Amino acid sequence: MRQFERDHIHSMTGYTPGEQPCEPGVVKLNTNENPFPASAKVFEALRDFDAASLRKYPEPDCRTLREAIAAELRLSEAQVLVTNGGDELLRMVFTTFCAPDSFVLSTEPTYSLYPVLAALHQCKFVGVNLDDGHGLPVDLAKHVRDLAPSLVLIVNPHAPTGRLFSLQALGDLARAVPGVLLVDEAYVDFVAPEQGHDSVAFMAEHPNVILLRTFSKGYSLAGLRLGFGLGAEALIAPMATKVRDSYNVDGVAQALGLAAWQDQAHRARTATRIRRERTRVREALIARGFAVPESHANFVHATPPAGSSAHDLFLDLKDKGVLVRYFAHPGDALRITIGSEAENDALLNALPATP
Amino acid sequence: MRQFERDHIHSMTGYTPGEQPCEPGVVKLNTNENPFPASAKVFEALRDFDAASLRKYPEPDCRTLREAIAAELRLSEAQVLVTNGGDELLRMVFTTFCAPDSFVLSTEPTYSLYPVLAALHQCKFVGVNLDDGHGLPVDLAKHVRDLAPSLVLIVNPHAPTGRLFSLQALGDLARAVPGVLLVDEAYVDFVAPEQGHDSVAFMAEHPNVILLRTFSKGYSLAGLRLGFGLGAEALIAPMATKVRDSYNVDGVAQALGLAAWQDQAHRARTATRIRRERTRVREALIARGFAVPESHANFVHATPPAGSSAHDLFLDLKDKGVLVRYFAHPGDALRITIGSEAENDALLNALPATP
Repeated sequence: MRQFERDHIHSMTGYTPGEQPCEPGVVKLNTNENPFPASAKVFEALRDFDAASLRKYPEPDCRTLREAIAAELRLSEAQVLVTNGGDELLRMVFTTFCAPDSFVLSTEPTYSLYPVLAALHQCKFVGVNLDDGHGLPVDLAKHVRDLAPSLVLIVNPHAPTGRLFSLQALGDLARAVPGVLLVDEAYVDFVAPEQGHDSVAFMAEHPNVILLRTFSKGYSLAGLRLGFGLGAEALIAPMATKVRDSYNVDGVAQALGLAAWQDQAHRARTATRIRRERTRVREALIARGFAVPESHANFVHATPPAGSSAHDLFLDLKDKGVLVRYFAHPGDALRITIGSEAENDALLNALPATP
Repeated sequence: MRQFERDHIHSMTGYTPGEQPCEPGVVKLNTNENPFPASAKVFEALRDFDAASLRKYPEPDCRTLREAIAAELRLSEAQVLVTNGGDELLRMVFTTFCAPDSFVLSTEPTYSLYPVLAALHQCKFVGVNLDDGHGLPVDLAKHVRDLAPSLVLIVNPHAPTGRLFSLQALGDLARAVPGVLLVDEAYVDFVAPEQGHDSVAFMAEHPNVILLRTFSKGYSLAGLRLGFGLGAEALIAPMATKVRDSYNVDGVAQALGLAAWQDQAHRARTATRIRRERTRVREALIARGFAVPESHANFVHATPPAGSSAHDLFLDLKDKGVLVRYFAHPGDALRITIGSEAENDALLNALPATP
């Protein structure tokens, strides 16, 4: 049998997306989806969308949506790149900035797509263990000095721990990295406003920082595949004008994304509701003996008390129709998406009182 | 100023999409869009789509749509890959099969995205001139033997000429190519049924052939960004499971694409109407002294009579609000999309009686 694909692709392993069960009634707390529907403005934009217009190509560069994002964040349009989900931005960052054999660094654990993209681009991926309190790895600076990575990827708030790294720590890292620092802010919409976490201002101070944002979580639009990148014009331009597929975002996604973006109040309301539930779920889990660090995302990281196995709990919950995510590292733990009030009740009811 | 992007990206030139004018009233015959709206079933699917469902991820592998395509074409699902427009398939083919420094061959002229993708993947692109009658280049076989390309790309029906290459000629080529032969069938929906052009059966006979199809032209859905690839499972699998972004097609596009696919009668009707207009426009142009080869696509290639400049005509038409595409090669010619009856009348009225 002839092999046509390139050798490194032949030998690599692809990414496995989270389970998407079809059975009705499953309480789905495994892929960090938003339990609440998108803004009413999105429903309106969908209802008003003229299917006849689809015979024409969409705006190739998402100009209207980029202008809206730039205006809201007080950036120039040239600092905004709209993508077919955050994953497309990640791939483009690898293609644009990471030569084969260059080092790519992240934490361990991290988003499991990163090592897959590194393998696809023939880069050397190194995951540096988080420190014991789930902080940024103490020896990250040393690894950066030694390996001179083309790219460092930090999820912030971090998944699966929910930890929010300080912008000061990320600034130190940005200055040390010779290549690009990508801060994956897939979950940033769930950070409480009182944290004063102004990552856009932080980005503007660093010529090598790209922020990843997505409509999937905070705007309840995972099904629409819409994300964006923010960075200095010199970082955005080669992706926007050379690496990007010419029409990477369809016309419906552009229209619905714009409607979602223009209703920041809806995003803020659902985020507040999720944060309230996040506190309730965390406290209930702590009361049952779980170790649950404070989370700034729409999930919590829960390590069961000694003598109890997270993997057993994971299987037991699945039997009872509640899907969560099991992680073997760090610790032996569950990552539980914060659902609606009823979904969270179902989770807490399905868990043994003393696991 | 630090340069972060890789050197070959820094020095390459990106792709320029066709003009997308915003002014109302422009007769847009420059980017081969379908002048007729999509099937009524697409309008229904859009109206019935529940925006609330967008909070969840879409089917990662477009299973439902792939099943429908496979069933209609009598293929297995594993031979079908659904993509974010045909352009995404092209990029994935390069990434999967074309090592840096390998040769990539096409005709000259061809789809101008191909050399851009070759530059992005650090491949050596060679465009071999079509023969004088717009046939496949007579010395293509020699180039294939000499250069052992990782990929050969043939647009069929060809753009910008509208020529339909025979499956026998493509079969000879497929056997000679050591790598992959991609046949870009963006315009195949406009081939008359009486041509008996069964490229799917042809593909099934060749382990190294990938067919590119799109919903953009034949299904009037350019704005939706939906295409698909057909090929042997061994060719499709590495793209589907390793190179593809995990959720590359959004939920709305999957639903609307399925609706369009399920109304093949609508596609056939609009194609028939476009073919009728294609004949009328061609004959009117010939009557005015243009050389217009028979076209099997939704455009015609028109070379003005001696003493008349295609570029002057292009500018003159633009002044009069009719956008067509100018090509300096082969010949000095216009590529004119077949529009609606009224749009084609506007074109013919805007052209001088004896150019």
